Parts: sequence; structure tokens; C-alpha cells
Amino acid sequence: MKKILFSVMMLAALSAAAQQRNNIVPSFEGAVEDFKPNITNQLGRQYPMVNSQGAVRAQLRAPQANAVRLDIGGRKYEMVKDDQGVWTGTSAPQDVGFHYYQLEVDGASVPDPGTVYFFGAGRWGSGIEIPSEDMDFWQVKNVPQGSIVEKYYWSKATESMRHCYIYLPAEYDKNPGKRYPVLYLQHGNAENEQGWSAQGHTGQILDNLIAAGKAVPFIVVMDYGQGQNIHLVGQYADMLPKPQPGQRANNDGFQVVLLTDIIPMVEREYRVIADAQHRAMAGLSMGGGQTRRITLANPTKFAYVGMFSGGVMSIEDIQGAAGFKETNKVVFMSSGSKENPRVMEAAESLRSIGVNAVGYVSEGTAHEWHTWRRSLYQFAQILFK
Amino acid sequence: MKKILFSVMMLAALSAAAQQRNNIVPSFEGAVEDFKPNITNQLGRQYPMVNSQGAVRAQLRAPQANAVRLDIGGRKYEMVKDDQGVWTGTSAPQDVGFHYYQLEVDGASVPDPGTVYFFGAGRWGSGIEIPSEDMDFWQVKNVPQGSIVEKYYWSKATESMRHCYIYLPAEYDKNPGKRYPVLYLQHGNAENEQGWSAQGHTGQILDNLIAAGKAVPFIVVMDYGQGQNIHLVGQYADMLPKPQPGQRANNDGFQVVLLTDIIPMVEREYRVIADAQHRAMAGLSMGGGQTRRITLANPTKFAYVGMFSGGVMSIEDIQGAAGFKETNKVVFMSSGSKENPRVMEAAESLRSIGVNAVGYVSEGTAHEWHTWRRSLYQFAQILFK
Repeated sequence: MKKILFSVMMLAALSAAAQQRNNIVPSFEGAVEDFKPNITNQLGRQYPMVNSQGAVRAQLRAPQANAVRLDIGGRKYEMVKDDQGVWTGTSAPQDVGFHYYQLEVDGASVPDPGTVYFFGAGRWGSGIEIPSEDMDFWQVKNVPQGSIVEKYYWSKATESMRHCYIYLPAEYDKNPGKRYPVLYLQHGNAENEQGWSAQGHTGQILDNLIAAGKAVPFIVVMDYGQGQNIHLVGQYADMLPKPQPGQRANNDGFQVVLLTDIIPMVEREYRVIADAQHRAMAGLSMGGGQTRRITLANPTKFAYVGMFSGGVMSIEDIQGAAGFKETNKVVFMSSGSKENPRVMEAAESLRSIGVNAVGYVSEGTAHEWHTWRRSLYQFAQILFK
Repeated sequence: MKKILFSVMMLAALSAAAQQRNNIVPSFEGAVEDFKPNITNQLGRQYPMVNSQGAVRAQLRAPQANAVRLDIGGRKYEMVKDDQGVWTGTSAPQDVGFHYYQLEVDGASVPDPGTVYFFGAGRWGSGIEIPSEDMDFWQVKNVPQGSIVEKYYWSKATESMRHCYIYLPAEYDKNPGKRYPVLYLQHGNAENEQGWSAQGHTGQILDNLIAAGKAVPFIVVMDYGQGQNIHLVGQYADMLPKPQPGQRANNDGFQVVLLTDIIPMVEREYRVIADAQHRAMAGLSMGGGQTRRITLANPTKFAYVGMFSGGVMSIEDIQGAAGFKETNKVVFMSSGSKENPRVMEAAESLRSIGVNAVGYVSEGTAHEWHTWRRSLYQFAQILFK
């Protein structure tokens, strides 16, 4: 009997240790009961819901399941089954903005059938929006509407058809004689070319700004930049920048594709002003790092540079890139206030050598899409002016 | 003891009956072992797979699950767990073409995390492609590429922003002085405005046909037509056609939205030839039925009519719609050979009164997207010539 009791205790202890290791926690108990359906739910679905604290409540019918969990923000919240076989669970409050998440059903990690799906965290899966007070600027409104163009094009550097999305402002089709500036805008790690239009609401942000007269009309090109999935061929494989002493080897094939294929395609197929003063690059997180490297390595090609939660440029960076300072109109560096940002001091430092550097801290937000929507909203208003 | 045995037997019988009722069947045993990853899998995912017979093999890691099933084609195939907690199951051979499906984990119906997601069967969820011998015509090729434009627009009839996709041929941006004919192309029941570009590969079909000189360049408008989700307001709610004696009440708000909002928006925002001789309508399944009703109710508005697995027009239909015959250039009616089609005799019948009716039977296909891709491929070659 003692042996059995000991075994049961050992198993319980092991199980608790496993739970801790897997970040399994109970359903959040302190939720205010003002939950509303999440705005990225599938048509007609009530769950998942979000409350005024930013807590997420998921629900799934799984009558024969042993354990169902809500997997969000690095934790797995235990859901509880009712007598109809419906499991319900609530997360602790999440940061405002957009979060990737999934459900775990008896060890299987699956999308929540309640939401529409987004590409992020390296997979197509569920996403949820924790409402913020300033969501208005990215809503679809009855203002002149631009369009998001889905485009395939031939890439010499990869010998394959590549795929991108291009925002054209509302007036583009009405002014066949007019040419426009272009922003090349990149996603983060484990996201893809659809991120900026789907999660980022680029189209709505630009349409609303342009309609309000706060931004000049420009084109936005959103392409796929995940280096390890860009397979350069032939001479193009040799074009990757060699790492500087102390740097990691650079596997960033996106730089080659951008210069070899994307920019020439855009300047051939669309009515753009094809000079540095009308060419901007920006990106979020990994895309901000790519923006930093690519614009410093091509210092006379882009007059506008934006890094959203994607690091900063230093005086040494710019002084080491001949022609960058003379070409540059704006270096924009932003970060969520919850990210421990250095962007304001980095901007101040750059201004001391005469660079028009702008720092922006997104109040109350973390390393997620609401920080980046706000960053685009700010950056767009100073572009090409 | 007898009572217990009786109870156990009763339970077993009830359980077997429940399985039959839910169409639960064993994993298919006769599969040829030449499975390859499905072409709509997420990047890097091996499963689901499809073999040369059209059987589907799914796999899911769910170590604590009691039962995992592959739910496809109206049946649920039992999957089997290995000692790593990975479940594998195989369906019977499926018809060639595109199929919506899901996995069932302990009673929870969830998307397969292996695939990208499509809207159909009333939800965003998994889809799989059973390869056919003639897939070439809808592949992305290195030919001049048109684009799929995502567009929001204000709808007076619903007092809301609506959402559509518009195919523009490759030459559209290069010919600012040229105007183009337009095909209004509708999805089926429980699908949406993305179906024709995502599952239907409209962009690829048209790009490839136009590049080969087999179709003239035209615009395709793909909008959302699910009647019960179109909420007309004010005077527009009264514009729905009244049912004829013997007909069901018609809840098809799409007709009002098409005429009030969609066609005027397209003719205002794009360079189109805005007359009946350069205006076509077609649809699949429910969208074919809508095409039939809308073109008969507006007999001088559309010169080209296509019904893909969407019924047929009769001599009486056309004789009852004053001006239809004089306006019409083509009535195209198609069906998969597995759908018990009447399209060939219906076309013959219409030809007897002088209508240029074309019947098309898609060999070896059923009521799914490969029938409709082939139908578009055929229809596009006779449009606007």
C-alpha cells in the first residue's frame, strides 16, 4: 500500500513538473464578465471572446476529450468541460493588439475553428484581436478606397515565380499620367507577405490617412522576406553581403531578391517615381533589421528608412555607409513601450550628426501588430513630403 | 450477470448504430503506397498526403486522444495511434479536384494543421487537392501576369462596406486608353468571394489562356453572393423579385446588390465597356442558379450567360424573358460527368429556337472545383468574341 501511495505521489509530482515545464496553468479566475465576440471570428461564431481586461475566452465542443487547453501568450490555460461536452477556458489579460494562438486537444495543437486564419508564428492558424482604444485608424471606412493587388512575378535570382501584395492608392487608376513614390514594407520573422495587409491593415491605414489629407498618396509593396526560404541560384547566390568581423553570417537572400527582382518589377509594371527620393523601406522586427542592413548596404537607394521594433541605427552605422546621410530624408525608429525601447535616445543621437531621425514609442503596446500599425500610421505621415 | 451482459451487448449495439449514423468507417486498407504531400499543404508539411488512387492520408500528433478521425467526403475514417502518439488514417479514393475536409479529435471538429485554409462548406477550414491529369491549365506559369485586386466599396443597398476581388488582365495597366469587357463570376453555396481566385485559380486560368491567344483579355469580378447574409435596407429590400406561382420565395439579395452597387462601382472605377455585349455573368452551383434568375430577370443586360453545375435554361425560360434571345450571344451550361448532367440536351433544345447554346460535360469529375475550373477554361475561350 505504501509503495502504491508513493508511486501515485511520484506520478502526481512528475505530472505537476511536466505541467510547469509546459506552462500549463488553470483557467483565469479573475475575469470581468463583459466578454464580446472577437472581431476576427468567422461569420456567426460567438467564440473566442475578449473582455475589457483583454482576457480571452475560448470554447470548443469535444465531448470525448480528456484535456483541452487555450494556448496563448506562452501559456496553456486549462479549459473545463460542461455536461454537453463543451470546453470553456479563459486566459489571463493579454496586451492590446493582435496575437497568434491555438487550442490543444489531448496533445494535438490545432487552430481554433472559431476564428479566421493568419500566417504568423510560422504557420497558418488562429489570431485574436485584443481591442485598443485607438482602433479607429485601421477600420474600413466609407472613404475613397485603394486596393490590395495580389501579383505573381518571375524572379531571376531564385528562378521561380514569386508572390507579393501591392497597395495602390484610390486615385491611382484615375490619374494615368501620374507617377507615385513607393514604400517597400516587410513583415517579421515567421510571417509572410500577407501580414501587412491582413494583420497590419495597411490598406485601411493608408486609405484613411490619404482621405484625411494626412499622407500623400503612395504605393506600398509587401513581399516575402524569410531568408531561409529564399533559395538564390547561380551568380545571385554569390551576391549575399559578406559578414563584417564579429557579425553572424548573413543568410538574407531577401536583399538580393529585392534589388534584382522586386524593385525592377515594380518600376516596370507600375507608375512609380524610380529614384531614391521617392523610395522608402521599412519593416517590423526581423523586417526592421533587414531594412537597416539593406539601406546601409545600399546607401544611395532609399531616402526614407523605417524600423518598427527592429533595432536602431547608430552614428557609426551611418558614418560607415558612404552617401547614406546625403541621400536620407528620414530615419524612423519605433518600438512598443513594453519592449524596453532605445529608439528615442537613438534618434537623439542621430540628430546630433544632422540626420533627420524620428523616434516613436507606442504607448502601452508590446512586440505585436498594434505597435506596428501605429508605427506605419506615424511613418506614413512623414513620408515623401 | 445476464443483465450486465445484456447491457454490454446493448451498449455495443447502440455504439455500432451511432457509428453508422455518423458514417464512421475504418481507415481505408487498399491504398497504393505512393503517397505524396498534398499541394495545398502549409510550407514544409508532409501531411496530408494523396496517392495515385486519390486516397487521402492524414496525420496528427495527439498523444492523449481517445479517437482521431479524418472527416472527408461525408465519411469519418478512423485514424490509428502509433507509440509516439501520432495518429494516421487513410480515406477511400476521392474524386479528382478540390475537397473541403476536417479532422475530428475526440469529438471536436477542427482544421487539419497541415493545410492552408479555404472558405467553403460555410467555414474557413482545410482543403485538399486530388490531382487530375489536366492540372496544367491552372498552374502559375512564367507568362504575362494579371493581378487579383482586393477592393472594398460602399453599398447603398446594404448601407455597408462590401468586399470583392477583381481580376485585371496583364495588359490592363499598360493600355490606359483601352476599355475591357467584364465577367461577373459567382461562387457556390456556403462559399465566398475568395473562392474563384483561391480554389478556382481564376487568375492563372485567364493569364494562361490570354498568353496563349485563346481568350481575349477581360476583367472578372468576384463578389459575395450568399443571399441570407445580404441584408438589404429601405427601398432596396422591396426590390427583390416576387416569386412566380409555384416558386419558392426568393431571398436573393445578391441580385439587388449586383445591379445597384457592384456593376455601377466596376463601371465607375475600372476601364470597362459598359454595355450588354461586353457584360457576362456566370456562376457555379448556387451561383449558376443566381446567374439564371438574374440574367432572365434582366434580359437585355448580359449577352453571355454561364451556368456551371448550376442547372439549365429551358425554351420557356427564354421565351418568357422579352429581349433575352435578341441580346444573348452565348448560353453556356456545364456539369461534371458524375453529376447526372442534362446540359447537353438542354443546349440542343435551346439551339432549336436559335439560341447559341453550348453544353459542356467535364469528364470524370463531380460537383466540385475541378469541374468549375474546366468550365471557366471552356467558357473564357468563347467569351466576347
